[in-house]
Amino acid sequence: MKILEEKILEEGKIYPENVLKVDSFLNHQIDVGLLDVIGEAFYEKYKGKKITKILTIEASGIAIACATAKFFGVPVVFAKKSKSLNIGDDVYVSRVSSFTYGKEYDATISREHLKNDDKVLIVDDFIAIGNAMKGLVEICDQAGAEIVGIGICIEKAFQHGGDDLRQMGYDVTSLAIIDEMTDKGEVIFRD
Amino acid sequence: MKILEEKILEEGKIYPENVLKVDSFLNHQIDVGLLDVIGEAFYEKYKGKKITKILTIEASGIAIACATAKFFGVPVVFAKKSKSLNIGDDVYVSRVSSFTYGKEYDATISREHLKNDDKVLIVDDFIAIGNAMKGLVEICDQAGAEIVGIGICIEKAFQHGGDDLRQMGYDVTSLAIIDEMTDKGEVIFRD
Repeated sequence: MKILEEKILEEGKIYPENVLKVDSFLNHQIDVGLLDVIGEAFYEKYKGKKITKILTIEASGIAIACATAKFFGVPVVFAKKSKSLNIGDDVYVSRVSSFTYGKEYDATISREHLKNDDKVLIVDDFIAIGNAMKGLVEICDQAGAEIVGIGICIEKAFQHGGDDLRQMGYDVTSLAIIDEMTDKGEVIFRD
Repeated sequence: MKILEEKILEEGKIYPENVLKVDSFLNHQIDVGLLDVIGEAFYEKYKGKKITKILTIEASGIAIACATAKFFGVPVVFAKKSKSLNIGDDVYVSRVSSFTYGKEYDATISREHLKNDDKVLIVDDFIAIGNAMKGLVEICDQAGAEIVGIGICIEKAFQHGGDDLRQMGYDVTSLAIIDEMTDKGEVIFRD
């Protein structure tokens, strides 16, 4: 998606260890106009597929999921990363190891909000090694929900999480695919 | 707001220690149509006030902030609750004690995204004792940003966080104000 690639080139910042910071528009400060375009792109790809839920994981994913859900007219469900007083015990859980936060957490979704007749579109801001997305896939398996697709804003292809999921048979749609981030601070997109 | 009160009565669940669970539509599963109505209500209250940023805190606040920001045509900025690799050191920080999660965390916002010429509307899903909102107020003070108002979906008035902020001089707009939650599971709204 041209507009997202341009935004990454204009405002993204590269840090050591392949960190790409897009926190001026995607995951700290949020450009809600851009979100709308992103949501519509996922809708164009998956409309007609009878999606019943947009699934994501807190925190940045929530903004993208809400923008997408509006086009589909279905609810968002987001997995929690820490256990609150409120969530209860009747939950699906998947253990996720986070590179960005340098720790492990339990992705948790209440059984009440994900069922075996749900047809799910999973969305998130980034995929790198893909542990968070694999956690959501595992939770959908626990629920018996069907995963229609996985929509990602930015795929860091050299960290292989997207391809892992494709090899598992999932339809992964990434709006910007980065093949390489160079030491000079260049971002090379896939054509 | 009638539609929000009705939704609370229909789908809200009361648990011990004054916990009101609204996770079927507001903070686990999200009704994006309702979000739109909420965002518009905040817009009607604060339009014409030259708001430059909608400020909130992860996670549930993000959905409400994005729905609100769309009406104002301004960016969202959300405070992070845990330190990621990506946020850097040039940040505002306020220590917050969370009742819901039973722990303390540092609410953190990059200095890059909040400035002394910003006019801010703070929004969140709930206010109870109000520690998260007080943390965001402290961060705005650190930045020298002006707080035009604080928009809350559900205020639990008997826990006094909303009134604390009003006494500090802030314009708090709560769309549903709960005066009492009874042992019988009743929710009593303020007229």
